[in-house]
Amino acid sequence: MRDFSGDHRWLSINTATLRGAGTLDRIVEACARHGIRAISPWRDQVHAIGLERTAALVREHGLALSGYCRGGMFPAMDVAGRAAALDDNRRAVDEAKSLDAACLVLVVGGLPGALAGTPKSKDLFAARRDVRDGIAATLEYARSVAMPLAIEPLHPMYAADRACVNTIEQALDLCEALDPLPAVGAGAPSPALAGLGVAVDVYHVWWDPKLEAQIARAGRARLHAFHVCDWLVPTKDLLNDRGMMGDGVIEIARIRAWLEAAGFGGYSEVEIFSSENWWKRPADEVVATCIERHRSAV
Amino acid sequence: MRDFSGDHRWLSINTATLRGAGTLDRIVEACARHGIRAISPWRDQVHAIGLERTAALVREHGLALSGYCRGGMFPAMDVAGRAAALDDNRRAVDEAKSLDAACLVLVVGGLPGALAGTPKSKDLFAARRDVRDGIAATLEYARSVAMPLAIEPLHPMYAADRACVNTIEQALDLCEALDPLPAVGAGAPSPALAGLGVAVDVYHVWWDPKLEAQIARAGRARLHAFHVCDWLVPTKDLLNDRGMMGDGVIEIARIRAWLEAAGFGGYSEVEIFSSENWWKRPADEVVATCIERHRSAV
Repeated sequence: MRDFSGDHRWLSINTATLRGAGTLDRIVEACARHGIRAISPWRDQVHAIGLERTAALVREHGLALSGYCRGGMFPAMDVAGRAAALDDNRRAVDEAKSLDAACLVLVVGGLPGALAGTPKSKDLFAARRDVRDGIAATLEYARSVAMPLAIEPLHPMYAADRACVNTIEQALDLCEALDPLPAVGAGAPSPALAGLGVAVDVYHVWWDPKLEAQIARAGRARLHAFHVCDWLVPTKDLLNDRGMMGDGVIEIARIRAWLEAAGFGGYSEVEIFSSENWWKRPADEVVATCIERHRSAV
Repeated sequence: MRDFSGDHRWLSINTATLRGAGTLDRIVEACARHGIRAISPWRDQVHAIGLERTAALVREHGLALSGYCRGGMFPAMDVAGRAAALDDNRRAVDEAKSLDAACLVLVVGGLPGALAGTPKSKDLFAARRDVRDGIAATLEYARSVAMPLAIEPLHPMYAADRACVNTIEQALDLCEALDPLPAVGAGAPSPALAGLGVAVDVYHVWWDPKLEAQIARAGRARLHAFHVCDWLVPTKDLLNDRGMMGDGVIEIARIRAWLEAAGFGGYSEVEIFSSENWWKRPADEVVATCIERHRSAV
């Protein structure tokens, strides 16, 4: 297991963590001031300053993209809605490619209408069919431009409105069905990153009794991203009360050890939704704290 | 599948649903006014009016107890804490027995201290060991008085503070490890209720992609209780914003069909924690609504 205590080479900042800091250029500059080597930007933040400006900033500061957030949101009530989702996902793949992101993260979507507060269906099976079909179609396009897709299982409390893929086991079942890996013979080189894999966010999966086994099952080829934050006790809001690493109850290093035992050697990407705490603090304080906690609690 | 549309014979009221109505005697009287045949009382409500008074009320109104809430909360930081939990669980078994409850529901507990807001450990593995050992010891005692125990897997959002058993699969793994069923030969009678089984609450498990398969795995012998309410979109509070059946997105009848296909023929127990809505309404309105929704949405 890599030693993170001495530096922050393997720390990536998901730009949602700095939502309080303003536009993406200011967020990138804050990261650069602290020697951050990688970020994972959100599409709305990219669109707000433009893709070309974002690409220029990323080049200027020599940043890697540990991921691009996000594609997905596949379920819809009709053919037109599903087609619109596929179009949007192709654009997301293109944007990820033009920014040279390591993967496009997929938050797959839940019941149609639920994210806007008015669910139009209760059929979780239909939603999961749309997700499977949507990933299959997006994967075909993503393959053509060599952009890996990372299914992010979300915490079950988001099953209705954000993602009806809620465990790594479920995500890996989808990966194996849609993108079976070639068998690797004894002595053969390890497989490269698969076209379809998973993003493991400790916030979403820490509770899972099968977590260690499913991370091992994923293996290096399917482990596309590792996101960290913490589960606060008490948690006051279902979406925006996520904690800084070390402030909650997740044994983050234990989970990281499982990923590394499975061959993962990428970034630990800090993604904290925190409307009442971290988003209200100065960007430099947030980044400095991420660095400190990356060394002590990740 | 039983037809619930014509009457409410199979409706049970979990008394937490009527927390706004005052003491347990008033709750029981409200249920009796509406021809409710079964309840599932909480220990704090029973203790407030006394066990003997509760038993007299139950007898007077000819009520069945679809369960007794609740035992569990096993994890602790030291031997004394674990021993105190076992003592308390033995008392809960005795109370359930003296009220002739169908089962004692177990909410197994999470990280020590977390329920009070100050977790003293992050070790989910240790908590799960305490849970296993605590259930094993309680089962031995419960067997001696023939009181079935029902492990209630709670939604993963309660893994830290309320229950570190979060899926039916995990609960059934515990059941099989601690209370293996005798093999039933072809043509032999179905097994009776096992000493150790599960309480399936749709609120906690509706999102689970393995739900149908695990209900089938449980079978009649392990299906000790069925709890209903609904998942609201949006959900504004992690604990106390549960919905009336039909007001949310859970396909309750679909899940009930899976239980009945597995042999379950007991009560549908309405358990709604709703501090800002149902707990503020008159008991008669709440019970009447439970009856109406039992017929139309369960």
